[in-house]
Amino acid sequence: MDKLLYTGKVKKMWATADPEVLRVEYTDIATAGNGAKKDHFAHKAELNHTISTLIFKYLGQNGVPNHLIKSISERESLVKKCDMFPLEVVTRNVAAGHFSTRYGLGEGKVFPTPVEELFFKSDELDDPLMNESDAIALGILNHEEHETIWKISRQVNQLLSDLFDRAGMQLVDFKLEFGKTHDGQIVLADEFSPDNCRLWDKKTKDHLDKDVYRRDLGDLTTVYEEVLKRLENVEEA
Amino acid sequence: MDKLLYTGKVKKMWATADPEVLRVEYTDIATAGNGAKKDHFAHKAELNHTISTLIFKYLGQNGVPNHLIKSISERESLVKKCDMFPLEVVTRNVAAGHFSTRYGLGEGKVFPTPVEELFFKSDELDDPLMNESDAIALGILNHEEHETIWKISRQVNQLLSDLFDRAGMQLVDFKLEFGKTHDGQIVLADEFSPDNCRLWDKKTKDHLDKDVYRRDLGDLTTVYEEVLKRLENVEEA
Repeated sequence: MDKLLYTGKVKKMWATADPEVLRVEYTDIATAGNGAKKDHFAHKAELNHTISTLIFKYLGQNGVPNHLIKSISERESLVKKCDMFPLEVVTRNVAAGHFSTRYGLGEGKVFPTPVEELFFKSDELDDPLMNESDAIALGILNHEEHETIWKISRQVNQLLSDLFDRAGMQLVDFKLEFGKTHDGQIVLADEFSPDNCRLWDKKTKDHLDKDVYRRDLGDLTTVYEEVLKRLENVEEA
Repeated sequence: MDKLLYTGKVKKMWATADPEVLRVEYTDIATAGNGAKKDHFAHKAELNHTISTLIFKYLGQNGVPNHLIKSISERESLVKKCDMFPLEVVTRNVAAGHFSTRYGLGEGKVFPTPVEELFFKSDELDDPLMNESDAIALGILNHEEHETIWKISRQVNQLLSDLFDRAGMQLVDFKLEFGKTHDGQIVLADEFSPDNCRLWDKKTKDHLDKDVYRRDLGDLTTVYEEVLKRLENVEEA
């Protein structure tokens, strides 16, 4: 029986027989507002796992180092064990959400150059915004690691902005997490799903992400199914 | 009669006959917590004005471009009119205050490299932390201006860390503000006083700055007089 290593808000991490390999299990839980809002949605695990696997494979095929080894069930994958940076690495192509609130702006302004923000991953401190010199002062990473993380994030942004565009969606913003494998390589980890990005329909600007749950705009499962369907159609094209 | 252009929390700005010159008038007011706490202290205006004038002259003599033209009374100076960046430019040599609160740390850790932080100057939004890409996205400054501001801030930190050290004080952190003169030069503006820096006695680590008021640790006027006395003794040495 595998040992449960960590229970996150929406995923569980299990040990495997190989010390360098973990099993990640998606759950049907959705949360918002740092866990203040929490609900179950049937099949959310399969949806997020399928979307994230599709995206991570696509990124891997295009040269983005990431933790995915392989999918082993509808809601489980094997991934490389990583020493995670306690950072949320956020790229914003369009003003929305936290950015708009913080600076008292509306949503929808397209930035000439993407906005790049780090947040310190801490439920207790409510994930505060931090800058590079803060992160270095706290010993979270050094300057070279900071550069690597943003180099990969920019590559992800180019690849996925294009992929979602072909699927009729605008990649508004997204959150990545990074870790180091046992050999010291910095890789993309965690997941990429509508839970941690904003996707707007290109024409209608309808929300196709967790904002439908955060803001009570519609049914989360229906929307995530739509995202998956559009991505699969692009893949087949 | 000069026209009052702007009333800040603790200073007033007046027009003069020369459109490129303003008169700044210090007041006896102290505030904390974005104005939540507010009191009058007799002679605070003279103290801050004298300390700030001494510091700005010292910085000017050491090559730091700044707005000061000359002191014209105990509580008034003439300064170059500037188009101000709506930024608080904070340098931290030691963990304290907002930094310690944000990251759930104690105070007193000396950083190997100074921490550099920008805050968006907005009472309404409670002066949120921002990073370079946020500031550029909001059109506040460009990359070159950001570089210039930090180049000057680092020069100020070196000069003043040394000056305060010779005066028996540790420069823990400080907030600067910058503006552009009519010819486009970026200069240090606003003031430098115990209102916008943290100074600790080198030996006892006693607070010699506005924290005595923020945290009710002692009499503001007595402490500011002590800071001025120490600086004047260094100047005479």
